[in-house]
Amino acid sequence: MGRAGKLNRGLSVIDSYRYLKEGKELTEEEIFLASALGWCIEWLQAYFLVLDDIMDNSHTRRGQPCWFRVPKVGMIAVNDGVLLRNHIPRILKNHFRSKPYYVDLVDLFNEVEFQTASGQMIDLITTIVGEKDLSKYSLSLHRRIVQYKTAYYSFYLPVACALLIAGENLENHVDVKNILIDMGIYFQVQDDYLDCFGEPEKIGKIGTDIEDFKCSWLVVKALELCSEDQKKILVEHYGKDNPEDVSKVKALYHELDLQSVFTEYENKSYEKLISEINSHPSKAVQDVLMSFLGKIYKRQK
Amino acid sequence: MGRAGKLNRGLSVIDSYRYLKEGKELTEEEIFLASALGWCIEWLQAYFLVLDDIMDNSHTRRGQPCWFRVPKVGMIAVNDGVLLRNHIPRILKNHFRSKPYYVDLVDLFNEVEFQTASGQMIDLITTIVGEKDLSKYSLSLHRRIVQYKTAYYSFYLPVACALLIAGENLENHVDVKNILIDMGIYFQVQDDYLDCFGEPEKIGKIGTDIEDFKCSWLVVKALELCSEDQKKILVEHYGKDNPEDVSKVKALYHELDLQSVFTEYENKSYEKLISEINSHPSKAVQDVLMSFLGKIYKRQK
Repeated sequence: MGRAGKLNRGLSVIDSYRYLKEGKELTEEEIFLASALGWCIEWLQAYFLVLDDIMDNSHTRRGQPCWFRVPKVGMIAVNDGVLLRNHIPRILKNHFRSKPYYVDLVDLFNEVEFQTASGQMIDLITTIVGEKDLSKYSLSLHRRIVQYKTAYYSFYLPVACALLIAGENLENHVDVKNILIDMGIYFQVQDDYLDCFGEPEKIGKIGTDIEDFKCSWLVVKALELCSEDQKKILVEHYGKDNPEDVSKVKALYHELDLQSVFTEYENKSYEKLISEINSHPSKAVQDVLMSFLGKIYKRQK
Repeated sequence: MGRAGKLNRGLSVIDSYRYLKEGKELTEEEIFLASALGWCIEWLQAYFLVLDDIMDNSHTRRGQPCWFRVPKVGMIAVNDGVLLRNHIPRILKNHFRSKPYYVDLVDLFNEVEFQTASGQMIDLITTIVGEKDLSKYSLSLHRRIVQYKTAYYSFYLPVACALLIAGENLENHVDVKNILIDMGIYFQVQDDYLDCFGEPEKIGKIGTDIEDFKCSWLVVKALELCSEDQKKILVEHYGKDNPEDVSKVKALYHELDLQSVFTEYENKSYEKLISEINSHPSKAVQDVLMSFLGKIYKRQK
């Protein structure tokens, strides 16, 4: 318990930049700049997590009480979240203001923040308590939430940062963005799967997506595959904070063999991503993308 | 009831810009650009107010329930606040990206947001429930909170926006900034005064600074002027949500004749501001500053 964040997103800026420089050793200054952008992504994530925990009324984060749960903090956590975000423009101004790509960096962080907040909005309004309505849950809604809420900032942003410091114009890399968004969606489907079927010791938490009425890939798939009678079970038991209701939902997931459905999804996604990556003209970009994919393929945590 | 915002801050961008153009009629495009920046300031304020109301656990704002008090909204208001803020970089990018002062605009809004959030932080940590300690309240603390939390975004920001679209370099206008900060502090002292001595029908709300243990100019002055015995009254009754306690504090304010102390402060501040404004080399800038001062001098609401 008491684990800090893993800094995956931040560190992947440096990794990606290294691949883009095609193995040439990075100078100290290059490492510094890539690290500064990595920290910007970490502050962005810290800001979102502090505020998300308030909105989700969560209890723990990384094995510790959520920041707003600390007695002296409470709702002051809202302003603390805002202050965390304010590190980003300050770091950018301090270290990048004279760079030709300064405006692009500022615009990038602004755009990705907006996308993430928009995804969070869609997620929140589909999960409003008292309006529990499974009929609105679909694969396209799931995809939209994940794309905006997670994929842009977790997958696209680190690579976009690396591309900018490598002197690239982001407008020339829409294909890279699309592949990374697809990878982000694959990542979140894994997350949804592990929330229910993962081992709590490995994933470091006890999943509560079923209790929380989340628009999880599992419930969306279940809705797609179930009979009318099975659907009644979902409608009756999904989104209730009660072990018996949760068991009914999990039993249905097993009945529908969602574990095999997931394995098939995982294999197909992987093949599709590999073929997209291989069709990219730049070997350096391929290496960046393969390194991301390698980190998440068949992950157990 | 149900009053909308007055848009004072936003409108003052256009007013200020007009003065800076020395009475030359503004073109349609110039009015559009000044209005766009005015709206950015209004979104910035909306963002702060939505979040501040959550942190202060407020009930009403502008005669209506606070946004987070609307049943279907609740803590989703945190993300809505974030979305309000995200209008700013979007407006700036859409309408100013090709302007030579684009980077300065972006930096300005970022800097002012950081200052405001920092002021809010100082305010929140000095008002933490359970640590009610009047001994930390002083004129310099009051000044620091007001300068950061209110003055930068309410007084400096509109004029700085107007200066930028008028082609000015903000580094050459530190004196203007300092005068506007002083004006913002004067404005907030009035606000603190009216919270206790203003007419609720005029100011549109019933003040609760005494109940809320606020670091108000009045309590700071009272602490400065009171005897040891009077200080005991303050320590015992300040910050309690009970009409009898509030009455004891108000009686002490009358005993110390804070109304006269305020009138003297108001006259001195006004004289000082007038002399600072008159010593400014540019007539156009003088006009901008006088127009701000005219709007707030001896206000009753």
